[in-house]
Amino acid sequence: MVLKDATAGPRNEKGIAAVIGVLKQRFGERLNTGHSTREQHSHTTTYIPEQLPDAVVFAENGAEVQEIVRLCADHEVPIIPFGTGSSLEGQVNAPLGGISIDTASMNRILEVNAEDLDCVVEPGVTREDLNVHLRDTGLFFPIDPGANASIGGMAATRASGTNAVRYGTMKDNVLSLTAVTADGRHITTGSRARKSSAGYDLTRLFVGSEGTLGVITSVTLRLFGIPQSIISGVCPFPTVSDAVNAVIMTIQMGIPVARIELLDALSIKATNAYSGLSNPEMPALFLEFHGTEQSAKEQAKMFGEIAAEFGSGEFIWAGEQEERSKLWKARHNLYFATLQLRPGAKAIATDVCVPISRLSDCIGAAQEDAAECGFAAPIVGHVGDGNFHVTLLVDEDSSAEIGAAEAFVSRLNERAVVMGGTCSGEHGIGQGKKSALVDEMGDALVTMRQIKAGLDPANIMNPGKIF
Amino acid sequence: MVLKDATAGPRNEKGIAAVIGVLKQRFGERLNTGHSTREQHSHTTTYIPEQLPDAVVFAENGAEVQEIVRLCADHEVPIIPFGTGSSLEGQVNAPLGGISIDTASMNRILEVNAEDLDCVVEPGVTREDLNVHLRDTGLFFPIDPGANASIGGMAATRASGTNAVRYGTMKDNVLSLTAVTADGRHITTGSRARKSSAGYDLTRLFVGSEGTLGVITSVTLRLFGIPQSIISGVCPFPTVSDAVNAVIMTIQMGIPVARIELLDALSIKATNAYSGLSNPEMPALFLEFHGTEQSAKEQAKMFGEIAAEFGSGEFIWAGEQEERSKLWKARHNLYFATLQLRPGAKAIATDVCVPISRLSDCIGAAQEDAAECGFAAPIVGHVGDGNFHVTLLVDEDSSAEIGAAEAFVSRLNERAVVMGGTCSGEHGIGQGKKSALVDEMGDALVTMRQIKAGLDPANIMNPGKIF
Repeated sequence: MVLKDATAGPRNEKGIAAVIGVLKQRFGERLNTGHSTREQHSHTTTYIPEQLPDAVVFAENGAEVQEIVRLCADHEVPIIPFGTGSSLEGQVNAPLGGISIDTASMNRILEVNAEDLDCVVEPGVTREDLNVHLRDTGLFFPIDPGANASIGGMAATRASGTNAVRYGTMKDNVLSLTAVTADGRHITTGSRARKSSAGYDLTRLFVGSEGTLGVITSVTLRLFGIPQSIISGVCPFPTVSDAVNAVIMTIQMGIPVARIELLDALSIKATNAYSGLSNPEMPALFLEFHGTEQSAKEQAKMFGEIAAEFGSGEFIWAGEQEERSKLWKARHNLYFATLQLRPGAKAIATDVCVPISRLSDCIGAAQEDAAECGFAAPIVGHVGDGNFHVTLLVDEDSSAEIGAAEAFVSRLNERAVVMGGTCSGEHGIGQGKKSALVDEMGDALVTMRQIKAGLDPANIMNPGKIF
Repeated sequence: MVLKDATAGPRNEKGIAAVIGVLKQRFGERLNTGHSTREQHSHTTTYIPEQLPDAVVFAENGAEVQEIVRLCADHEVPIIPFGTGSSLEGQVNAPLGGISIDTASMNRILEVNAEDLDCVVEPGVTREDLNVHLRDTGLFFPIDPGANASIGGMAATRASGTNAVRYGTMKDNVLSLTAVTADGRHITTGSRARKSSAGYDLTRLFVGSEGTLGVITSVTLRLFGIPQSIISGVCPFPTVSDAVNAVIMTIQMGIPVARIELLDALSIKATNAYSGLSNPEMPALFLEFHGTEQSAKEQAKMFGEIAAEFGSGEFIWAGEQEERSKLWKARHNLYFATLQLRPGAKAIATDVCVPISRLSDCIGAAQEDAAECGFAAPIVGHVGDGNFHVTLLVDEDSSAEIGAAEAFVSRLNERAVVMGGTCSGEHGIGQGKKSALVDEMGDALVTMRQIKAGLDPANIMNPGKIF
């Protein structure tokens, strides 16, 4: 949460002016220095105050990105890659100014290789657009972080979401990518082969590097066949701990559950109020099973038996699209329902991830802590992975509340690390979690810094993020 | 295959003598400079001629490794980490001499967290030892590269094997690791959390780095529940292409096949002769299905229907252990059966991996090429991943044959890259594939070199490998 920027040096005014001059000539109206455009490219979904870039350039292809990067490199001017701006930790802020490269126009789907279950897309393609495009192929791209994020941004943040328990995260689903490095090379990190042991895993290094090592210009993704059968279900439990124990056994039994989401009692209350539902105000698991008709049913049945062992209420499930949507309505509307718990408040999301055996302890401690602080703090968890989000609803004009929220988040992050987990399951570090990363990684942060220094010695690639 | 070592400089005689002097004092009999021990630590399963380290030190824990690395760093002496020596591309050779750190005594299983489906092991634990240890927990570690390799070595080489199609490779199954870096820090690359977006993915960077970035001192692994039901099967096909097309459809249908191995007609012939079997001398798929009793059966049935569509012979499958072993006998004995095709010959293994749509083309071209060269060259493939091995049986005393084999491998690697694949699916680069890596990675190799230079500027960590 600390916004101090250890790398913040003086702005390179001369370099920035020179770069903008050249970019104006070269890109005409695609180079925008207007305040509102710059503002849109900094203050997005994050709770962190905006820091504007000096200009936004709308690139249309990888060659243009390379041209822009080379120019910025010559003048040592910061580059901030921009997808849709749905990052949460200030990843697109520009603490030292510089050039925001907007990739929204790089939205072509370059290849769909149905036999190989992969595709190649430009970074500005959003996950929803990709899935619309794929519809007739019988394939889909599963990663779903909630927002309709760009594939480039999702790769850069190592995003995941509700179905990572079955399909993995971006780390598992990016086969390869192309990127322009700080020294202006346009590299390809891997091939379309399903596996490789050909040298360092540059693909996984760039995935999650948040634009600090280069600008992603295309991404090769794994795809999956649309399951023959999808079953959705909802199941209430007396306590969070009972729900989590049911999840642990489900995973241990090898049931390949596609989604398994926990809403705490407060979240259920919020969604009941917001969507006119009448779910029992108890912790609940929202589930999805993918498979053949027979195997999806078998999975649901097995889960139901496990849930009953842990004292669950009625497990309701359905296979028809309409019924499924109805069951999951509470989960889908959760964000807006949560905001209505305190209208006008700002939502601060947390993102710890712990080994699943510690999950109910970690959630319980967070609930107690929130109660002591007087926060309304509903919790939703991607519990199959041990990842959960506490949403703090704060008055952003109250420095006391902001301070209390920051202290709460610090304690939460610390507890997660002590329990063998991490401060960030899927949102990344950005500006917001820099100090938490120091606490979590210890001496390993030196290695990250050595990599950054080796690949970007002038620190022009998204400076002030991660470190 | 080229053995020239671009990084080979003069040996650091003075530094090596100084380090050995100190290590003798410190480790007594655990520091060995005898020729046979040094030889055992260099010439292993690789076809590449041996290059001996100057001494072998048998480390017993991470603190000792750190001590050794710091000493070597002070004197700029090469360090070669050693597991079981089952690598194939000269990964444990010592072209500049130096100290081989044998980790075989670092064989403790430090934690088994059954609820979290993970464990923490020292690098010298072998995969078979781990699975024996796990037997009573109902869990297992799936990655099976054939050899009873050490977990540290498997992580360092990004190994995989027969069941990667279902369970992934070491990249997917190492949650975190500890390593001593070239500057003597003992770092932890991650946590036990199932997913993380906390900074650069150091875990994935060290996995597959072949000892060139540090010495692995412990590995945190994912585990899986032993499946309730395992079904094995064998199915012959008229052509490789028919078999591969059946694999493509199996994967597209989302059948979660656990193993799907291709043996070409020559391999079948070799195993028939070696093991007194009477499998039809046609390409065949060897399969394994994991699941509940119902789902494993359903998978086998679905596969059988697909196979029939591609003109398969009879698909024979079984669920009982004894029957299963009988069915898979040909696959299990393949290595020894292959050697009998030309007794006394040396086996050179290749390791390309291509998108599955190009697999039958790539295999077909390799078969034609081998026939033109006059090589007996049986082929076995982890076909679910597009990875296959051609085994060349050559007379190692014939420079003409060795030259022809090197040229064959170069052409194979080139074809794989042109087809969108890689020169190494699972064996790594070592010394043997350095020039192939240059051809494959192009400008991205500069980025790998920048990482190496940033993390190991004096090039003491396993020098002469990968680059």
